[in-house]
Amino acid sequence: MRATFMYGPGDVRVENAPDPVLRQPTDAIVRIVRACICGSDLHPYHNIPASEQGTPMGHEFLGVVEELGSDVSGLRRGDLVVAPFAWADNTCDFCREGLHTSCRHGGFWAAGGIGGGQAEAIRVPQAQGTLVKLPVGEDSGLLPSLLTLSDVYGTGYHAAKMAKVNARTTVTVIGDGAVGLMAVLSAKRLGAERIILMGRHKDRTDLGRDFGATDVVAERGEEGIAKVRELTGGDGTHTVLEAVGYMNAYEMAVGVVRPGGVISRVGVPQYEDAPIGFGSLFGPNITLNGGPAPVRAYMDELLPDVLDGTVEPGRVFDRTIGLDEVPDGYRAMNNREALKVLVRP
Amino acid sequence: MRATFMYGPGDVRVENAPDPVLRQPTDAIVRIVRACICGSDLHPYHNIPASEQGTPMGHEFLGVVEELGSDVSGLRRGDLVVAPFAWADNTCDFCREGLHTSCRHGGFWAAGGIGGGQAEAIRVPQAQGTLVKLPVGEDSGLLPSLLTLSDVYGTGYHAAKMAKVNARTTVTVIGDGAVGLMAVLSAKRLGAERIILMGRHKDRTDLGRDFGATDVVAERGEEGIAKVRELTGGDGTHTVLEAVGYMNAYEMAVGVVRPGGVISRVGVPQYEDAPIGFGSLFGPNITLNGGPAPVRAYMDELLPDVLDGTVEPGRVFDRTIGLDEVPDGYRAMNNREALKVLVRP
Repeated sequence: MRATFMYGPGDVRVENAPDPVLRQPTDAIVRIVRACICGSDLHPYHNIPASEQGTPMGHEFLGVVEELGSDVSGLRRGDLVVAPFAWADNTCDFCREGLHTSCRHGGFWAAGGIGGGQAEAIRVPQAQGTLVKLPVGEDSGLLPSLLTLSDVYGTGYHAAKMAKVNARTTVTVIGDGAVGLMAVLSAKRLGAERIILMGRHKDRTDLGRDFGATDVVAERGEEGIAKVRELTGGDGTHTVLEAVGYMNAYEMAVGVVRPGGVISRVGVPQYEDAPIGFGSLFGPNITLNGGPAPVRAYMDELLPDVLDGTVEPGRVFDRTIGLDEVPDGYRAMNNREALKVLVRP
Repeated sequence: MRATFMYGPGDVRVENAPDPVLRQPTDAIVRIVRACICGSDLHPYHNIPASEQGTPMGHEFLGVVEELGSDVSGLRRGDLVVAPFAWADNTCDFCREGLHTSCRHGGFWAAGGIGGGQAEAIRVPQAQGTLVKLPVGEDSGLLPSLLTLSDVYGTGYHAAKMAKVNARTTVTVIGDGAVGLMAVLSAKRLGAERIILMGRHKDRTDLGRDFGATDVVAERGEEGIAKVRELTGGDGTHTVLEAVGYMNAYEMAVGVVRPGGVISRVGVPQYEDAPIGFGSLFGPNITLNGGPAPVRAYMDELLPDVLDGTVEPGRVFDRTIGLDEVPDGYRAMNNREALKVLVRP
């Protein structure tokens, strides 16, 4: 099969690779119908160490079940399924608590001998717990929206849920990438009436307005903080959904959060140490939470609105390419020419 | 009157000072009946910049109302009252949300022209919102326990509340100072069945066992982390109540918290930057919260159990002194000869 590997910063290649095979009775083999490139794939695109063997890429996909291990029940060959960006057994205590990203028998794609989703096919460990059947056909126009359940929609939703967004909470979303826009959509779905989107790409923030943003702040840093405070009578917002991961985004989050409020992070932090002392989080009793989203936990909840068209998260895809064009897709996203790239292997 | 001032590290003096007078119609003057020295007073005791004029000290007191401004209602001269360590109007939006430490018209003792509690008398701003009447006399044996409502009991309770401690959550309390012991008592009160106390002073951890600790870990650092993990099947505890404030305590908190768990800090951080990235908080979806406790918000809830003797938080006081002995009291607490020192002006 053809599959995507990254060999170093900016060095993405689509190459021939062995077809995946069942290794455990809990595995399935899925032929990938749609995949995509994630904003978080741009972090290794900037700083992955160069390697001889390359790293498989991609953690978002939906596809058709081709083979099933003997211990997998509830799925059949030919089923169209979507996978969360972390595979999980869906039965351990962490999964039962809704924290599938800490599953005792789970893990992440493109690591530890598991392939990536930017490929023609993939071996799915813990298939019964990982895969969710989709009641549509391979030709459905809903596939882009359904694919967002794999990561960005569930991740934006995680940010909003962890922040306890509701009708009484004002919201700032930091970042107008796909996850930021999904955080806007999620905040709106949870009833927020005031959603300030911080982003400076007009085509993206316009989509953010469609998804529910009531205000857009294009300024960044101290200027951006001042603007959000001006919009909120000086107080900042009850919740801040941080969907970027860089230190300046964290600093903006601290700057715009209201005393007693919540900063919920879903952008993968590109830093380890950051201010959390009296002058930042402690003094005003700020809560900091978030992390890799257990999107599997949210799929059942989010699926119906996607199926009936109430929400259209698939609108974040603004370019569609074939598998061999994936290197171009990374370039386009890195140059901000594309918001999010859909891949049809 | 006599009052306590700090002039530099280790330099505490009790001196003559002008008697406090009403300045605003919302003020009261309180004659102090009991005060105490706080673990957090030891931070300036170590590192306060030397000054000519000195800094008033003390933020925990109960006493008798001597004078009332014209705008204060609900209180009378002669009432015995307790004050929270932050004064507040108890009516603004933050106070109504239970975040009195961020009151729009509030502040802290011993700052901005307000005196400290280690004194014979004090001017209380926003007296109507700040002071809570106590239904006992000046000679009541309950005064030590009632005084803990001023800070340490409410602060330990804040840690446990913010961490959402309940019967299903395992708890680690870091620190065997008065606040740590009050965090143990609070976790027990909220139903926790497994409370691991990290501390290495046997007399204090013995009191911690009386308050509800089920396990004591005397080891610190990596060794302490390993011990707590051993006690919890490798997972750590759902909640960690950090009642110290030093970086090594924060690092232990990160080391012993279970994925998806909460670190609630009430020890005043003696650092600004700390690890919060993928390898510490983000990856396992840890929540970090806490801050200066809005103890005023908890007084009504905690008072009945203190009055009827269900809990005896006053047991944290193991030495009683007069006002002129306050410098000795600081020395005793700093040398760990006393857990918490009660002052009878």
